[in-house]
Amino acid sequence: MPLPKSVRRFSRGSDVNELPFRPALQSPLHDFLAPKSIAVVGASTDPTKRGYKAMLGLIKDGYPGAVYPINPKIDMVLGVKTFPTLESVPGPIDLALICTPAKTAPGLMEECCRKGVKGAVILAAGFRETGPEGAKLEQMTLDTARAGGVRIIGPNTSGMFNLHHKVNLLALANVKPGDIGFISQSGNMLLSLALEAEHNGHVGFSTYVGPGNQTDIGFNDYLEYLGEDQNTRVATFYVEGFRDGHRFLNIARKVTREKPVVVYKSGSTEQGKRAASSHTGAFAGSYEMTVDLLRQFGVSVVHNSDEILPVAEGLGLMQHAHGKRVAVVSDGGGQATIATDRLTEAGLELAQFSENTRRRLAAILMPQASLVNPVDVAGSTDANPALLAECMEIVAADDAVDAVFLVGMFGGYSIRYAEHLLGGEMRGAESMIELANRVDKPMVIYSLYAPIKPPALRRLHEAGLPVYSSIEHAVRLLAALAERGAYLAHVADSTPVAGVSSIATIEGIFARARAEGRDLFEFEAKALLREHGVAVPAEEVVSDASEFAGIAGRLGDGPLAMKIVSKDILHKSDVGGVKLDLRGEDALRQAHEQIMASCRSRAPLADLRGVLVTPMAKKGVEVIVGVMRDPVFGPVMMFGLGGIYVELLKDVAFRAIPLSRYDAQSMVNGIKGHKVLDGLRGEPAVDKEAMVDLLLKVSSIAAAYPQLAELDLNPVIAYSHGYAIADARVIVDQAATMDHAAS
Amino acid sequence: MPLPKSVRRFSRGSDVNELPFRPALQSPLHDFLAPKSIAVVGASTDPTKRGYKAMLGLIKDGYPGAVYPINPKIDMVLGVKTFPTLESVPGPIDLALICTPAKTAPGLMEECCRKGVKGAVILAAGFRETGPEGAKLEQMTLDTARAGGVRIIGPNTSGMFNLHHKVNLLALANVKPGDIGFISQSGNMLLSLALEAEHNGHVGFSTYVGPGNQTDIGFNDYLEYLGEDQNTRVATFYVEGFRDGHRFLNIARKVTREKPVVVYKSGSTEQGKRAASSHTGAFAGSYEMTVDLLRQFGVSVVHNSDEILPVAEGLGLMQHAHGKRVAVVSDGGGQATIATDRLTEAGLELAQFSENTRRRLAAILMPQASLVNPVDVAGSTDANPALLAECMEIVAADDAVDAVFLVGMFGGYSIRYAEHLLGGEMRGAESMIELANRVDKPMVIYSLYAPIKPPALRRLHEAGLPVYSSIEHAVRLLAALAERGAYLAHVADSTPVAGVSSIATIEGIFARARAEGRDLFEFEAKALLREHGVAVPAEEVVSDASEFAGIAGRLGDGPLAMKIVSKDILHKSDVGGVKLDLRGEDALRQAHEQIMASCRSRAPLADLRGVLVTPMAKKGVEVIVGVMRDPVFGPVMMFGLGGIYVELLKDVAFRAIPLSRYDAQSMVNGIKGHKVLDGLRGEPAVDKEAMVDLLLKVSSIAAAYPQLAELDLNPVIAYSHGYAIADARVIVDQAATMDHAAS
Repeated sequence: MPLPKSVRRFSRGSDVNELPFRPALQSPLHDFLAPKSIAVVGASTDPTKRGYKAMLGLIKDGYPGAVYPINPKIDMVLGVKTFPTLESVPGPIDLALICTPAKTAPGLMEECCRKGVKGAVILAAGFRETGPEGAKLEQMTLDTARAGGVRIIGPNTSGMFNLHHKVNLLALANVKPGDIGFISQSGNMLLSLALEAEHNGHVGFSTYVGPGNQTDIGFNDYLEYLGEDQNTRVATFYVEGFRDGHRFLNIARKVTREKPVVVYKSGSTEQGKRAASSHTGAFAGSYEMTVDLLRQFGVSVVHNSDEILPVAEGLGLMQHAHGKRVAVVSDGGGQATIATDRLTEAGLELAQFSENTRRRLAAILMPQASLVNPVDVAGSTDANPALLAECMEIVAADDAVDAVFLVGMFGGYSIRYAEHLLGGEMRGAESMIELANRVDKPMVIYSLYAPIKPPALRRLHEAGLPVYSSIEHAVRLLAALAERGAYLAHVADSTPVAGVSSIATIEGIFARARAEGRDLFEFEAKALLREHGVAVPAEEVVSDASEFAGIAGRLGDGPLAMKIVSKDILHKSDVGGVKLDLRGEDALRQAHEQIMASCRSRAPLADLRGVLVTPMAKKGVEVIVGVMRDPVFGPVMMFGLGGIYVELLKDVAFRAIPLSRYDAQSMVNGIKGHKVLDGLRGEPAVDKEAMVDLLLKVSSIAAAYPQLAELDLNPVIAYSHGYAIADARVIVDQAATMDHAAS
Repeated sequence: MPLPKSVRRFSRGSDVNELPFRPALQSPLHDFLAPKSIAVVGASTDPTKRGYKAMLGLIKDGYPGAVYPINPKIDMVLGVKTFPTLESVPGPIDLALICTPAKTAPGLMEECCRKGVKGAVILAAGFRETGPEGAKLEQMTLDTARAGGVRIIGPNTSGMFNLHHKVNLLALANVKPGDIGFISQSGNMLLSLALEAEHNGHVGFSTYVGPGNQTDIGFNDYLEYLGEDQNTRVATFYVEGFRDGHRFLNIARKVTREKPVVVYKSGSTEQGKRAASSHTGAFAGSYEMTVDLLRQFGVSVVHNSDEILPVAEGLGLMQHAHGKRVAVVSDGGGQATIATDRLTEAGLELAQFSENTRRRLAAILMPQASLVNPVDVAGSTDANPALLAECMEIVAADDAVDAVFLVGMFGGYSIRYAEHLLGGEMRGAESMIELANRVDKPMVIYSLYAPIKPPALRRLHEAGLPVYSSIEHAVRLLAALAERGAYLAHVADSTPVAGVSSIATIEGIFARARAEGRDLFEFEAKALLREHGVAVPAEEVVSDASEFAGIAGRLGDGPLAMKIVSKDILHKSDVGGVKLDLRGEDALRQAHEQIMASCRSRAPLADLRGVLVTPMAKKGVEVIVGVMRDPVFGPVMMFGLGGIYVELLKDVAFRAIPLSRYDAQSMVNGIKGHKVLDGLRGEPAVDKEAMVDLLLKVSSIAAAYPQLAELDLNPVIAYSHGYAIADARVIVDQAATMDHAAS
């Protein structure tokens, strides 16, 4: 079967030749996910039992290895002789499928260890998910397995299959071997994709695993395995929750250079589970953060469940596009408009054709055709559908085109217009296949006839050119191809910036704060920044009114701001602890008196250290720069529009620390509000380079001080040159030690 | 065939009994969209021609009326005797399908007139869409038809069908008669829906029309017709552009009380086509505005093309939900989570079950089941799928539930688990059908087995309970049902507020501005508002510095703002025409000098009238209130967050003028940023009643002064009590006369 060029290109190796990661089959999972022998513990003659179904799946699919049904009470299952125990099996056992109830697990695991079984799938529920008793049972099983070197899939799992090795332990009918490796925390989601694939008729799977309770093997191990598995061209995950997300990202960083990784993360609307002290901290564990971090490491995130299979199929076949400029070729104006709308919404661009391309199109199309993108053949192909392939060839030859999107009724000409057009459609399909083999640009096909699968569409699909029945799904794929292309293009220069060492005086500041069980004062937070090269406005902490003398000489004669300094006051404004726009020493003294009086009366128990005086920041664009330690993904930076809009708009970008320069740039340019940074309504653009520099410095600081639990610079006022940090807040991790920095 | 209660309910008449609109078959389109006799002009024996296909469609579908093929050159088409001309036909002709080229149209139209044909479908292209020559041909044809009382569908149309009357002029195979009336500016979109429907197997169509160039009959007429058509239970439109959108809204207002109207509007990402003088005017013709106005009149707008059929099918069958509280019943945790995510994103709510409901669920489900919404049966139904119907019945009986959403693998138990479960599935399906007949709440079913159509799902679908293969599509339907329910619930109190009469002094202000060819000065715009009862800050226009004397007594002793008054200066800040935060008469005099000097030097040709002095507005939430005259939809109000965020976020709501109180309330509560109005981070909520009052007053003003082309109040500073209008801009329509007000 001829495959399009993009497919063959992949099997020759990736475009990114200088990458350190080369699969060396280091994952121990190969031994039992592609087993040479399988024991089915609890094999059964009852057709409703998993111990029967698994046997049936192995036999029907023609599994070539040894199969050992284990059941002391019966002699044969489906004509295969049973064994009373694992140990009574004559040969070695790579994989044991355990179909018996939870309480049998520890005993069976001991048997597995004695027999030298490499991996066991424990299907039963009744472990950790049911409470403390079950958790004990699970821990006992795990301890036994660890001691004996047996790896565990599950427990509480729907099972696994590896179709290229004919290991179909789920006995799913009508699934075919194919490119998609799938790890799913929902068994229903596997069934759903399998049925969609059956309906699709062309897409297939490599390995499926339900990780279940992940007592031993977890997402990270499966990702590593799928990254190495030669039969998997796209690693696909349905994830309800990550445990060690930090490690997942680090493995994804390697795998995504070689092949696409697709993640659907459920729980997009779950409420945050902890009350955070900072604005940034409030986003910990959020869906938005998770998506940004996954994308940072090249993962293709899909947001709708019905997009998982279309996107995975297309990424598996075509891998990536070199850019986001799409050429649309269409035989119906209406659907060309829909395609244009969806492409634009997805952040893709309509390619601008060269003069030559337009001339070549004009030479083969009727005068009423539209030669600018989207191309509308306007009837030119009614009598000759193969002309669509010629249009695709012409636009694909244009250097300004990164991907070609055929939109309309191809495949249905012979049904709608005249039967004799079938020949032209088949010739057109062959030309498209030949074109896809020759040109290193994805060809994505939407046809309104896809639901009824006419011959030309079947031929395209068979040859590895997927055919979509939804414009929306086809565009999601085009977006994923372009996003992956952009990732691969910049991945070489995504080295994190060099770290910095902590400074003794700052360590002292943290130590004092901890000793007093408090967070950093604003002036301390600013000292931390200043010591590490961040521009911080001049300021003075004043505890006695006499210190105002001559302050204009030190802070300039512009208007000043004054804020209370107290470890006990979180919301300074609420207790009258802030005065703005102060001019002259008299005003300062009066404000000082008022602040102290107000705080004493409204926060009588607060320890008042004095006031911080600093020049008022000039007007500019308010942004927020933040740091948090996500319990799952580790240290994370945040950037976005500041002020009250942080919470309202959630227009913020996240990246795992340490940042590369590319990361910082993509944060600044990636927020929806980036137009504000570029200068709305004739305002000057802000100094984005200064923002990038600030992000990189804060990233280094966060890496150097594990005691820094959360940081909010909010607002930072961004100007056309530089910025002013108008407020700085550092939450101290009262427990963290230097050891944490290593994790 | 038993239909669910919701279906029968509809045929008994709508819930909204007190509505003025009752179908009386007033549309003249019935005469020829359900014709008793049809002539096919250009009937042909060539199977690739429309003149053959139409004959085939009529004969194959068993059209019971008279069919007259017209062709002077041949004797018979498909065994039917031809006539040389329309006039040679013995009986009357209700509908003529004209398959001949464009140039024959005027002559044929004369024939139609003489013959007394009621309506003609002109398929040919080659009219207005091709240029001035074609436009002349079209006008000539139209003039002839108008003179003779013949109505025209098209020209340049894909044609029409009316399947309940067996009028299948498109000769589409495998489309069935059904609920969906469809008017589409894209012929491909009809084909696409027809093929989706064929694949779906259960959904069908009533009337389809391609309006083509709409030379005579347009969207508005078709909407009226579908509103009256007894076979149409949902009127569905694919629209590339409205011509008289104002009238469309007024007809939709009537039709949507009786039946759902679904609109897909293409061009969602098109750039605005005109440079506007005001912020509000910049949104004229925008997709966002169009969607808001359609929704204001009860239209269900779908945003993705692959949602048109699922939403239309479900709305046709179930019409509406009484609220947005959905009960999810699921047999798989993963898909329950996906459903929850999508429901929440769509603005729906998970119903809170009563104690009784939870008790009843507990009585039939296993202990590990989740009894809070979403219900997860957690294996309880594995051996008895009919139990899912019992769960649905229990939650449907809860007063806190408005709709029931079944999510999971129903229909596939007999495939996945054991064949003998088929009986239980069929019993479950019958119970669900019976439940739907009895309970006035929509039942929406997603099954991962939908793609392969097992028996229980076929049974449900046949009985009028649609089965979806995408959670996302099912949720779009649930959202449309709830939105329609909310519309019907408030439609009774959506009477527009009473109008106001214009005031002579304000007419004078407009007249002066027009005479000088300028827009209103800010102080004039504020006078307009003040005269009509809108609270406007005190202000003075000063042309001589001496007038500052004693100003504190008149404007208060707070800080003042000063702005240049000049018809020639649009962007006051850009020429140094604005000074803020002025205290004391000295500061005012100095600012005045500076403003005048700066404006004289930077806008030397500008006519400077003086400066406007007004108290600085206190801090609050900045919003924008605007008016524009949309060329298609007429006068429109806008409300949203103000300042620079208007353009950036486009978080604005639109309503056609005149507003009802409900409209104004839904604008204030409907913007994404409504959380800011409710008080973010402990800020007090703004005075929403005052906002509503302001919107209603401005609506009345816009209706009373047709000379007012555009209005921007930006920003209006909203407070916990009242508001301050910090800037007001009125663009004067230099051409409008009082006559415009009537349109």
